[in-house]
Amino acid sequence: MTRLLRISAWLPLLLLPLGAAVAPVSAADNPPALAPAPPAAKAGVTRIDPTFWWVGMKNPELQLLVYGPGIGQRTAAIEGSYPGVTVTGQQKLDNPNYLVVNLRVEPTAKAGKLPLSFAGSGKKLSYQYELRARSTDPSRVQGVSSADFIYFLMPDRFSNGNPKNDVVKGLREHTVARDTMYARHGGDLQGIVNHFDYLKSLGVTAIWPTPVTLNDMPKASYHGYALTDYYAVDPRYGSSEEYVQFVQKAHQNGLKVIHDVVLNHIGSYSQLQLDPPAKDWVHQWPKFTRSNYNSQALNDPYRAQYDTKRYNDGWFDTSMPDVNQSNPLVSKYIIQNFIWWVEYTGLDAYRIDTYPYSETKFLMDWGQALLDEYPRLGMFGEAWVGSTAQQAFFARNIFAPVDGFKSNLPGVLDFQSQGAIQDALKKDNPNATRLYDALQGDWMYEDATRNVVFMDNHDMSRVYSVIDEDLGRMKMGYAWLLTTRGIPQLYYGTEILMKNFSNPDGKVREDFPGGWPGDKVNKFTAAGRTPQENEAFDYVSKLGLYRKAHPVLQTGKLMQFIPQDGVYTYFRYDAAGNTVLVMMNTAASAKTVDGTRFAERTQGYSSGVDVVTGAAVNDLKSFNIPGQTAWVLELKK
Amino acid sequence: MTRLLRISAWLPLLLLPLGAAVAPVSAADNPPALAPAPPAAKAGVTRIDPTFWWVGMKNPELQLLVYGPGIGQRTAAIEGSYPGVTVTGQQKLDNPNYLVVNLRVEPTAKAGKLPLSFAGSGKKLSYQYELRARSTDPSRVQGVSSADFIYFLMPDRFSNGNPKNDVVKGLREHTVARDTMYARHGGDLQGIVNHFDYLKSLGVTAIWPTPVTLNDMPKASYHGYALTDYYAVDPRYGSSEEYVQFVQKAHQNGLKVIHDVVLNHIGSYSQLQLDPPAKDWVHQWPKFTRSNYNSQALNDPYRAQYDTKRYNDGWFDTSMPDVNQSNPLVSKYIIQNFIWWVEYTGLDAYRIDTYPYSETKFLMDWGQALLDEYPRLGMFGEAWVGSTAQQAFFARNIFAPVDGFKSNLPGVLDFQSQGAIQDALKKDNPNATRLYDALQGDWMYEDATRNVVFMDNHDMSRVYSVIDEDLGRMKMGYAWLLTTRGIPQLYYGTEILMKNFSNPDGKVREDFPGGWPGDKVNKFTAAGRTPQENEAFDYVSKLGLYRKAHPVLQTGKLMQFIPQDGVYTYFRYDAAGNTVLVMMNTAASAKTVDGTRFAERTQGYSSGVDVVTGAAVNDLKSFNIPGQTAWVLELKK
Repeated sequence: MTRLLRISAWLPLLLLPLGAAVAPVSAADNPPALAPAPPAAKAGVTRIDPTFWWVGMKNPELQLLVYGPGIGQRTAAIEGSYPGVTVTGQQKLDNPNYLVVNLRVEPTAKAGKLPLSFAGSGKKLSYQYELRARSTDPSRVQGVSSADFIYFLMPDRFSNGNPKNDVVKGLREHTVARDTMYARHGGDLQGIVNHFDYLKSLGVTAIWPTPVTLNDMPKASYHGYALTDYYAVDPRYGSSEEYVQFVQKAHQNGLKVIHDVVLNHIGSYSQLQLDPPAKDWVHQWPKFTRSNYNSQALNDPYRAQYDTKRYNDGWFDTSMPDVNQSNPLVSKYIIQNFIWWVEYTGLDAYRIDTYPYSETKFLMDWGQALLDEYPRLGMFGEAWVGSTAQQAFFARNIFAPVDGFKSNLPGVLDFQSQGAIQDALKKDNPNATRLYDALQGDWMYEDATRNVVFMDNHDMSRVYSVIDEDLGRMKMGYAWLLTTRGIPQLYYGTEILMKNFSNPDGKVREDFPGGWPGDKVNKFTAAGRTPQENEAFDYVSKLGLYRKAHPVLQTGKLMQFIPQDGVYTYFRYDAAGNTVLVMMNTAASAKTVDGTRFAERTQGYSSGVDVVTGAAVNDLKSFNIPGQTAWVLELKK
Repeated sequence: MTRLLRISAWLPLLLLPLGAAVAPVSAADNPPALAPAPPAAKAGVTRIDPTFWWVGMKNPELQLLVYGPGIGQRTAAIEGSYPGVTVTGQQKLDNPNYLVVNLRVEPTAKAGKLPLSFAGSGKKLSYQYELRARSTDPSRVQGVSSADFIYFLMPDRFSNGNPKNDVVKGLREHTVARDTMYARHGGDLQGIVNHFDYLKSLGVTAIWPTPVTLNDMPKASYHGYALTDYYAVDPRYGSSEEYVQFVQKAHQNGLKVIHDVVLNHIGSYSQLQLDPPAKDWVHQWPKFTRSNYNSQALNDPYRAQYDTKRYNDGWFDTSMPDVNQSNPLVSKYIIQNFIWWVEYTGLDAYRIDTYPYSETKFLMDWGQALLDEYPRLGMFGEAWVGSTAQQAFFARNIFAPVDGFKSNLPGVLDFQSQGAIQDALKKDNPNATRLYDALQGDWMYEDATRNVVFMDNHDMSRVYSVIDEDLGRMKMGYAWLLTTRGIPQLYYGTEILMKNFSNPDGKVREDFPGGWPGDKVNKFTAAGRTPQENEAFDYVSKLGLYRKAHPVLQTGKLMQFIPQDGVYTYFRYDAAGNTVLVMMNTAASAKTVDGTRFAERTQGYSSGVDVVTGAAVNDLKSFNIPGQTAWVLELKK
C-alpha cells in the first residue's frame, strides 16, 4: 500500500498506437484527455496478452486479449492446423481495437509457433503466437515458509548496479535525481545481485523487492505500485529476461524471490486505461472518488452499500484506476497474468498489495487458480487492518464463509504483531502484553506460521526512529523478529539503523548508503558503518545465521507465557530436543523472574547460552534480567 | 464477575451436620478448619438434591445426590413400586455421607411421592422424594430478546420491601448496616415488586437481579456471587416460594426475570465445600492459587499448561472455591440444578457469571442440556475480554471448533461496545469510530442481536462519573443504548445519574435513594429527583417507552455508516416501512453532515421528528447537528 505516492502504459516493447481515453480522469497527474479519435492506424495485430504461453499447463483453457486497430471486427482461426490446439470462441469488446479469443491447449500439444489468423474486410492478418515448453528446473517456485528470512527492499533505492539503465528512452520519466525523494534514483536488479553476499551474511533467505513490473508514469513511478504493463519488467531495473536471470541467480545463491503484485489497481498510464478494452474494465465514477480505505465495510453485517462500494470500487489514488475484477474478462486477464509470471520466471512467492481492496469472488478465484497450477507457490497479502480477526478474515482461517467469501490466501503480513512490537519497544509505558495478545489471536488462522512478521516497512516510520533511536531496545526488536512465529521480514536498512518518519512520506525510502558507485560511505561493509551500526548489524547477522542453522527457530513449536511485570517469555522447541528460551524485559528496570513457572519447557535442562553474546545463564529456576533487554537462550542439558 | 468482593453452606432449611473441611483453605475469610471428624450423627437422609423433581421432563434420567451420615454404605431402592420410575444405579463417593442414586423417570410416570429406601446395617432408611407435575403456564420461560429492555439491579441495594427479612437467624452474617459498603443493606424481592411501576415507566421489560441464591457467607455476602446452596433463595430476599411468586408477579406485569448464575465457583461456606462429597468436587491446590483471570490462555495456540490450568482451575477468590466441572457427577449436579430453577420458577433467562472460567466441555454440555429442555430459555454470559473475536469465541459464532470447544451460548454481555460507548462519550478526544467498529465485528457471531449492550454495571465505574457528570453526553449514551442492536441493559440508578468510581469497589453499588422506608429523598418519584435527574429520567423514559412501542427499534434491521468527522450515523428500519435515524455527534463543535450519503435509507422520506423532544428536522439532505448531541429521528414520508 503506497497511498500517498502512487501516480501512473504499457511497455513500448512494441510501439503501441494509443486510443482515446474513455475514463474521465480529473487529476493533474493523469494523462491529458486525448483527441477524440486516434489517428487511423494500419491494420495489424500489435500485441496479444498473454504475450506468450506454455504447453502442458494444468488448465488447458487460454484466453487471449488481441490488440490491433479494428481487430474486433475480425474472426480468429488457426491457420492450417496445430495439433492439440483449437479456437473455442471469440468475443468482441466495446473497443474495436480488441478481440478476445479463447483457445484450448490440450496436454498433447507441442511447443511451437501457433499460426493465428484474423479474417475480415481487407487482407487476412496473421500472428505467430508462441507456445513454449515448461521449464523442469526443480529450484523454481519454492514457496516461502517460516524457515525463511525475508529482506524487503525497494529496487530503485537499494543499489544501482547498472547505471546504463537509469534513464530509458521512451519512458515518461526522463531523469534520475537522487536528491529528490519522489524521483527515480537508479537502483536496479543488478544492484541487488551485487549484494547477495551481504544479504547472505545476515542469514537472509528470501528477497522481496517492491514491484518490478513496468511503471511508466510521468512522475513518482519509483515505488512500482502503479503498473502500466502487466507483462513487462520496468527496464530501469533490467529487462524482463534479466529478471528471469535474477531469479535464477538468487536461487543459485540460496535466496528465494518474492514478487510483489497489485491486483486492485493499475497506473493511469496503462494502455488498459488509455485505450480501454471496454468501459467496464475499471470502475467508473461520475467524478474522481477515492476509496475509503476501510475494509470493515466489506464484512460489516450492517454495512451501507455506499461505504462498501467506495471501499471496493473507489480509486486508491487519482493516478490509480480501480480494476473491475467482477468483469469475467478482467478477472481472467489478471489470473492468467499471474500464472504467466510464475511460469516465466520461476518466482517463489507473491506478496499481494492492498489485498482486501479487490473483489472477494475474484480473490478466491485468483488464489485458487494459482494454487491449482502451483501448489508450492507462496502467497501472502497486505491487509492493513485494525484487529486480528479482521486480518485473519483475509487469510485462511477458521471462519465460516461470510457472504460467500472465504479467503484462500495462505498468509498475511502481520500488522497486529507489528503494532505490538513497536508498543513493546517504547521507552514509556512499554506494553509486553500486546505482543502476547498478537500471537494469542492465531487461533483464528488455519496456520499463522505462514504470516509475515515485521517491525516496519516502506509505508511507515522506521522502527529505529519510532523507538527514539535506542539501540538496546532495537536489539529486543531484532530478537523478537527472528524468534517469534511466522516468516520474519526485515525492511532494508533496518539492520543498519536507518531512520526517519513516514510523514512526509518518502523519508523512509532513502537510498542504502553505499549502493551507488561513488557513495561517500558504504554501509554494506563493516568499515563503512559506525560502531553502533556494526553493533546492530552484527546482532541481526548473528541471530539471523543462528536461525538459519537451527530449525528450532524456523519450524519449532512456540509456547508463550502470560507476560508478568513487563516480562514476556516464550520458547521455541522441537521434537529433536532443542529448546530456545526468549525472555524480553520491556520494563526499564531489571526484573527477577520465577523460572519455575516455565518448568514444562525447562525440565531436563540445566542452563542456557545466549546465542548472540555467548553468555551463560546457569540457573533456570530464577532469572535476573536487566531492563529493556531480550535474551535468546539455547537451553543445555 | 465480582472479583474484589466475593467472600463466602447450604441453607439450613434443613439443619445440616457439618463434616470436616477437606480443601486446604488459607484465607482469613474462609471457614475455620473444623475438628478432624464430625460428631457422630444420627443415621438418616438429611437431604436429597435436586430437592424435588418433575415428571414429564424431556430427559428421563435423574441423578440424586443423597446426603446423610453414613448413607454411602447403603443401597437405594424404591420401596414397593412406583410405575414409570426405576433405580438404574448408584455410586459411592469418598465421603461416606453421600450417595449418588440414578433414577429413570419414564414419560408415563405420575407426580407423587417416590418412596425411596436405603438399606444397610441398622434400620432401613426411607425418604419420600417428591415428583411434581410440570406447570403449563404459558407465560413461563419466555426467553429474552432484542425486543426487551433489561434493568439490572442488586436486590440488596435497590429497595427494602420487607424489613422483617433483613436479618435471618441462623445465617452467618447477623447485621444490616446501610452505612457500610460491604454489609447487607436489607433490599429484597418485595422491594423490587414495589417498584414494578417505576420500571415500567422507563419502558423496562426485564429485570436482572444479581444472584438471589443463598450466600450464607460470614461477610460481604450481599452481592450474591458466592452461593452456599444451589437449591435455595437467600431468605434475606425472600423465601424460595416468594421468588417463584416474584417471577409470576413480574410476568403479570409484563416484566421478564433474568436469573443470574455462577457456574464457575461457589462460596467457601457451601456445604459442598465444608463437607465435600469428594476431594475432586472443587479444584485443589497445594496452597491458595488465584485464577490469572486471562481467558486468552484457553484458546491461545501457544498456551502453557501453567497458564491454562491457573485460568480454569485457579480460584476466583480466597472465598470462592473453583468447581471441578470435569467431574461428571459435578457436571450433572450443576446441570440438573439449573434445569430445576427454570422448571421451579418459570424464569425467562440466565445471565451466566464468569462464563469463560468454567471448563469448556462442561459449558457445552450445560448449554445443550438447558436448551434441549427449554428451547425458549434466554441465556447470555459474562465474558469480560479484550476483543470482539475473544468475546465471540464464548457465544454462538462462525468459528470452527477450537480444541473441541464451540460455544452454544446464544449471547454475551457486549463489553466491546460498552468500552466503545464510554470512549465515544469522553470529553476529550471522543472516539466515534470505536462504536462503529464494535458493531462491525458482529460478522463473527451467529446472531449478535442476542448480545446485551450496556454502558456500565456493578463491576465498573458508573458511566456518569466516567464522563465527568455531563448530562448532555449522558443523553447521547442513553440514545445509543436504546437504539443500537442487541438487548439494552440499564444498571439501576444510571437513569437518575447515580455516580462514583469502582475503585474502591462498592461505591458503584449504593442504595437507590428512596428504596428504604424513611429515606430522606425518594428518587423513584419526580418530586424526589433534582431537575437534572428528572431530565435524565425523562429522557430514558421517553426513549424507553418509544422503543417499547416501536418494534423497529427492537427487531428492525440496522445499517451503519463509517463515522466521519466524529459523527456516527445509523438507521433502524423494517419491512413495514419504519425508519429511525440515529445521529451522534461526538465532537464538541457542531457539524454539517452531508445527508446524501444516506440516500439508500432516507429515500422516500422527507423529514424527521426527534422522538424525545418532538423537534422537526425538515431537510434530510444536509444536517447541522450541535456538538455532543445525539438525535433519534423517526423519519416521515
